[in-house]
Amino acid sequence: MSRRSTLRERRRQTAGAGLRQSPFCRYENPYPPFEILSADCVEAIHEASLEILEGIGVNFLLDEARRVLKAAGAEVDPDSTRVRFERGLILDAVSKAPSAFDISARNPERSLHFGGRSINFAAVSSPPNASDMDRGRRTGNFEDFCNFLKLTQSVNVAQVVSGHAVEPVDIETPIRHLVATRAMIEHTDKIFRLYSLGRQRVLDVLEMVKITRNFDDAQLAEDPSVFTMVNANSPLQYDIPMLWGMIELALRNQPVVVTPFTLAGAMAPVTLAGALAQQNAEALVGMAFCQIINSGAPVIYGGFTSNVDMKSGAPAFGTPEYAKATLISGQLARRYNVPYRSSSVNSSNSPDAQSAYESQMALWAAVLGHGHMIHHALGWLEGGLCASFEKFIIDAEMVQMMTELLKPLEVSESTLALDAIREVGPGGHFFGAAHTLERYETAFYQPMLSDWRNFETWLESGAEDATKRANRIFKSVLELYQPPPLDEGAREALNEFVDKRIAEGGAPIN
Amino acid sequence: MSRRSTLRERRRQTAGAGLRQSPFCRYENPYPPFEILSADCVEAIHEASLEILEGIGVNFLLDEARRVLKAAGAEVDPDSTRVRFERGLILDAVSKAPSAFDISARNPERSLHFGGRSINFAAVSSPPNASDMDRGRRTGNFEDFCNFLKLTQSVNVAQVVSGHAVEPVDIETPIRHLVATRAMIEHTDKIFRLYSLGRQRVLDVLEMVKITRNFDDAQLAEDPSVFTMVNANSPLQYDIPMLWGMIELALRNQPVVVTPFTLAGAMAPVTLAGALAQQNAEALVGMAFCQIINSGAPVIYGGFTSNVDMKSGAPAFGTPEYAKATLISGQLARRYNVPYRSSSVNSSNSPDAQSAYESQMALWAAVLGHGHMIHHALGWLEGGLCASFEKFIIDAEMVQMMTELLKPLEVSESTLALDAIREVGPGGHFFGAAHTLERYETAFYQPMLSDWRNFETWLESGAEDATKRANRIFKSVLELYQPPPLDEGAREALNEFVDKRIAEGGAPIN
Repeated sequence: MSRRSTLRERRRQTAGAGLRQSPFCRYENPYPPFEILSADCVEAIHEASLEILEGIGVNFLLDEARRVLKAAGAEVDPDSTRVRFERGLILDAVSKAPSAFDISARNPERSLHFGGRSINFAAVSSPPNASDMDRGRRTGNFEDFCNFLKLTQSVNVAQVVSGHAVEPVDIETPIRHLVATRAMIEHTDKIFRLYSLGRQRVLDVLEMVKITRNFDDAQLAEDPSVFTMVNANSPLQYDIPMLWGMIELALRNQPVVVTPFTLAGAMAPVTLAGALAQQNAEALVGMAFCQIINSGAPVIYGGFTSNVDMKSGAPAFGTPEYAKATLISGQLARRYNVPYRSSSVNSSNSPDAQSAYESQMALWAAVLGHGHMIHHALGWLEGGLCASFEKFIIDAEMVQMMTELLKPLEVSESTLALDAIREVGPGGHFFGAAHTLERYETAFYQPMLSDWRNFETWLESGAEDATKRANRIFKSVLELYQPPPLDEGAREALNEFVDKRIAEGGAPIN
Repeated sequence: MSRRSTLRERRRQTAGAGLRQSPFCRYENPYPPFEILSADCVEAIHEASLEILEGIGVNFLLDEARRVLKAAGAEVDPDSTRVRFERGLILDAVSKAPSAFDISARNPERSLHFGGRSINFAAVSSPPNASDMDRGRRTGNFEDFCNFLKLTQSVNVAQVVSGHAVEPVDIETPIRHLVATRAMIEHTDKIFRLYSLGRQRVLDVLEMVKITRNFDDAQLAEDPSVFTMVNANSPLQYDIPMLWGMIELALRNQPVVVTPFTLAGAMAPVTLAGALAQQNAEALVGMAFCQIINSGAPVIYGGFTSNVDMKSGAPAFGTPEYAKATLISGQLARRYNVPYRSSSVNSSNSPDAQSAYESQMALWAAVLGHGHMIHHALGWLEGGLCASFEKFIIDAEMVQMMTELLKPLEVSESTLALDAIREVGPGGHFFGAAHTLERYETAFYQPMLSDWRNFETWLESGAEDATKRANRIFKSVLELYQPPPLDEGAREALNEFVDKRIAEGGAPIN
């Protein structure tokens, strides 16, 4: 074998999954958070949110939840679902939340830390449609759902399976959680999310987690292994399925990501400060509720404030307002010393330049705002209505570049390179310098999607733009996909449970 | 006329130039600079750069420059062009540079401030090729050159004519500076750049500036009205044409932007710390030279450190390394209390997603690093080898979004909106709230390129991606272009001068 083909072979092996990428890694953000709001203004938002909880209150639609809150000292209106909260109750409860915790995967190398300097990136979740350049846009289906799982498993910066990358609409609702969760477990060994869509579904998926990990209840509580995302029905309302999710997960010490969806001008005030005050009220009361259920249960402060397009009323993402809200939400989360969830999002209808610059606006803000869990970071399109295979790869490059930016610069005698500068001297060049030759192979970030060849070479080889290259790459990744190991006993037990629950009719729609 | 068509008419008028855009504005960056390097490490780079200047020195190829430097106390090698500098000489000289200054345009509304919290965006300069989707890529020519000037004049965030947006190669070199500068003055009323390509060209353009403004030498010195960009011939060398530019502009108190082009792995060490130490040495000595020529002359610290693609040796831009270098260069410029020039750049061959995400990496870093003059911020493609009409519009959107991000969030009783939140109450919506209706027309950023319509509407109306829309927009802007007023006396005098100098043969190639 020639030296060149040996090198090529080695590159293929180390690259893995048909992709030239960095190894799977737990990332840290070494830089200070970027704070755009003064401490006084952060306090003003904090105060406003407490006034909302005291004076206006929040609707808790689940009787069980209101009973618990009343027992904890909240002021529960006997004639409605409204609950008001004295500020001490909220702040005491939130102060019980841990500042950091792990979520573990069945492959311990994929377990992740949330809090402190950690930063983790998750694949898109929940769009009703999927698209690629070959077949266009279609309603979400199980095949596309599984292909996104395979991509998520193969792409190292996709660290979290944050739900259904696309909704597998062809699986009947009562059994979808069973079939989809089994697919997540079979196709990936990364941490994953459970949907809070009613009590029975939550209990089913918790059971599947225990079966896969061979855990009893105590072990699960000891070792958080699944998480859920809870959206308030903004403004100021928590519905029954979401509250069951919060109760069942908090009880078992599994993380709850409390994410108000406060679209300024629609479900929240048109002014960003007001939308953030409302977001903060909803996030605080959600996190407090989890602590009241189980003091010390892991929670994450979710920020998802954006603005609507006032011409159409449709949500817009990756806007300047979105970026500001993202940075300020990080300041608020740090005020309460809890981990922070943000997102990388855009409103484009196509995996084009707009999708890239809007996602970058969101991604930079999420990173600078010290997001610990950055959702939708790979594959999101159309304000969340579509999961794009090409965008998944474009995002993988953008996220990987960001993780490279987070590697601190080494300043040392060797990197300051005075000897090399002296050796080369004025007017020379560094291509052949020993200092260069020793380092050039690993000195710089190597892109997975970006094409840095000169125009003529690029033109001759087909003039593919980034989206066309992403199309080629995602197909090659799917072709080379290898499923992760899964213990055969666990697989059998899992199948047995899922088959039984399907035979029982799954979890009927409430 | 119906209310709707009146509104449409009004929108057309206020938009101007066929573009829905924000008005021309002087921007400020209200946020703290984002610093990724510790003060100790910044000092280590500073120290290394002084050691380079003391121990290795810099080649000054112009005899005149070496004479001046010798008189100022530098150690000039009698047998070569090498000059070494004791650190006190450098630091004393640099301390004379102003921390801020204005560059004035003939339209006083277009004059700009450099330094402090100011931030200004410039169009691309100097690519040898131009491209658009209709006609593809072609060698730079005068027609494209003029069209880019018209775009620059029409697009408000293009605040600076930073040179030839594309090189008008069809104009003979000896007269190109005359013809091109006249076109800049005729087609725009924004501040512009003079190329330091030999003494005679510099003197010709300075004369044209004086004619246009009806200035004598004293007035020009009082009111800096043109600037030049000087690249070191890295490593550690200043050539004759650049030195003449520095001398003639510094003498006349016109700003010199000193920008080493330190590509790590090629003209600078492969390690970023070393490349930055070299950049800093070259920038310091360039700025010091201008101060030695004329103490207090305005200078700008230019950072342009990136890395090469080690497979091809070609420069790469908008990389993670580029972003780090950009942020750290800002820290260095602030250490010397001089304004900072950075750039928004990419390596893509097409105005696609790659061009957008690489430019965003550079743009965010330039803004966070408190760049005062952000070059190449509109239209740059292919690592600077091509000016793209579509990319110009894509960049205009990205820059305008960034300027919106720089508007500080208002936190007040009115924006915290507690009354509106109370009025709407849990479970309601804000679309019809008085608080919303009073504000919704101006509450949020309105994009010029981004398409936020839903997928179905977008599909029905042609499914244009951002690049196709940018193509349509730039053509409409060119169609509606109106030249700015120019005093008829100045126009005649300018034509007389240019015609005379052309008849004389212009400025022959040295």
